[in-house]
Amino acid sequence: MSTTGSNLTAPTQFLEANGEKYAYRRFGQGPGRPLLLLQHFMGTLDNWDFAITDPLALGREVILFDNAGIGRSSGKVPQTIAGMAKHALTFLDGLGLKSCDVLGFSLGGMVAQQMVQERPSILRRIVLVGTAPRGGEDIMHLEKPGLARYFKDPKLQGYAILQKIFFAPTESSQAAGEAFIRRLAQRREDLDPASGTEVAAAQMAAFRDWEQFTGERFAELKNIRHPTLVVNGVHDEMIPVSNSYRLVENLPNAMLLVYPDSGHGSLFQFHESFTRHAAVFLNQIEGAAR
Amino acid sequence: MSTTGSNLTAPTQFLEANGEKYAYRRFGQGPGRPLLLLQHFMGTLDNWDFAITDPLALGREVILFDNAGIGRSSGKVPQTIAGMAKHALTFLDGLGLKSCDVLGFSLGGMVAQQMVQERPSILRRIVLVGTAPRGGEDIMHLEKPGLARYFKDPKLQGYAILQKIFFAPTESSQAAGEAFIRRLAQRREDLDPASGTEVAAAQMAAFRDWEQFTGERFAELKNIRHPTLVVNGVHDEMIPVSNSYRLVENLPNAMLLVYPDSGHGSLFQFHESFTRHAAVFLNQIEGAAR
Repeated sequence: MSTTGSNLTAPTQFLEANGEKYAYRRFGQGPGRPLLLLQHFMGTLDNWDFAITDPLALGREVILFDNAGIGRSSGKVPQTIAGMAKHALTFLDGLGLKSCDVLGFSLGGMVAQQMVQERPSILRRIVLVGTAPRGGEDIMHLEKPGLARYFKDPKLQGYAILQKIFFAPTESSQAAGEAFIRRLAQRREDLDPASGTEVAAAQMAAFRDWEQFTGERFAELKNIRHPTLVVNGVHDEMIPVSNSYRLVENLPNAMLLVYPDSGHGSLFQFHESFTRHAAVFLNQIEGAAR
Repeated sequence: MSTTGSNLTAPTQFLEANGEKYAYRRFGQGPGRPLLLLQHFMGTLDNWDFAITDPLALGREVILFDNAGIGRSSGKVPQTIAGMAKHALTFLDGLGLKSCDVLGFSLGGMVAQQMVQERPSILRRIVLVGTAPRGGEDIMHLEKPGLARYFKDPKLQGYAILQKIFFAPTESSQAAGEAFIRRLAQRREDLDPASGTEVAAAQMAAFRDWEQFTGERFAELKNIRHPTLVVNGVHDEMIPVSNSYRLVENLPNAMLLVYPDSGHGSLFQFHESFTRHAAVFLNQIEGAAR
């Protein structure tokens, strides 16, 4: 099934399932379980940094996918994480995958948590980056002054805003952010359309719903026995690191990796370290985490 | 210099420096910087689990050392971390080592922090396991009911108490603890005498002093630019994981690794994962952490 080993050049494919058409890319090979990547707020297939995808694709198939209403996938963007998880499960069923690993970043990490609650058997190992449990705190409040200033800045267009909001305000982190957006810009053909305000509004509604909880806070995490790797930048302004602390304090089989001098996009800043540690985690054979 | 690759069989050596005689073991080889291991409360050379030391010694020399007044080292156990750091620096100078990496566990992690403050150039990369910054919270309060019950239990003798206090009260963690103390018991010759109440009292005084701070809490951590890996078990009762959170939130170049289902001895419970991730960290070439 694999056509090429890089998100720079992998062609976009389309899958029809349950009345929707899903855009996706699938590349890489190796002994590992296929790894489904679930994307962040407003992100499309083109927002997956090849510095992440390609090293991971050396040991396994990597599958990128546009959820409903994103990029070239049909349908409407759901206003809940549960709605997004349903599409992701439909997509995996459509591919005929009985079990895979998953890497969910930010919004995608919430979708991964929901998927494992609904269908534990379809996921083996879980990587959650820059994300929060249901009932987490301070999730994606873009109206906070520290973040709003970037959205109000007319000089910041396109990917330039990602350099500001995904990276810490240090020289070293901003340099990593610049390298990140340069990498994203290298793919020039077969691109997704960028997400607009309708996508943003629906996904934001999903974040607001995800902050709500009923009953004992974080109790549902105790049921997830899957080996899980939680990753965060210590200065994440969009989804603070405290949410990652709560994840590992409540998930029974999760290990935590926190990066210094970095924000929401710690995996892109430390792509070399991240892909190495993630590979150590994904390549473990026994049932225990790590 | 290396004589054997295992703490099961490495002979104890002695170094005279600055009027003291220090007991140590040194083994392993490889391209890495020598790695100095600094031991926990009441621990001797024999408390280093070969499941940790031996994999690390595949890529570098590992150096275990009894601080003053411990095991077969001469002198009195200092009542401050600074006093212990002074002996460790004297020992390294005596060996003629100009620069090494360090792995400090618990008390040893505090000594490592003090060493790097006093002589930054002698350390390259730092691994801090189950430890706390100066001014940390709830450091080694063995009088807490959760811990005191084990010390009061006459059925728990020798290493058996370590199984209780270093591991979480789950079946899986206790099983790992049993395996750990079985491994420790495998070395039968050339052993250190166990530490007694005098050692305990002096080291406990050092913990109480380490909890104190003056000026801005954790401010001195900002000066440590060294790439640092902080590791903890999420259910550590002896030095809670919050101390590790504070370390990575204040050290400018530290990454955090937290293990699930484990206590103070997370490195022994997850020895395979720990030594792999630690090797990824220690083998990085560039200046940045990780």
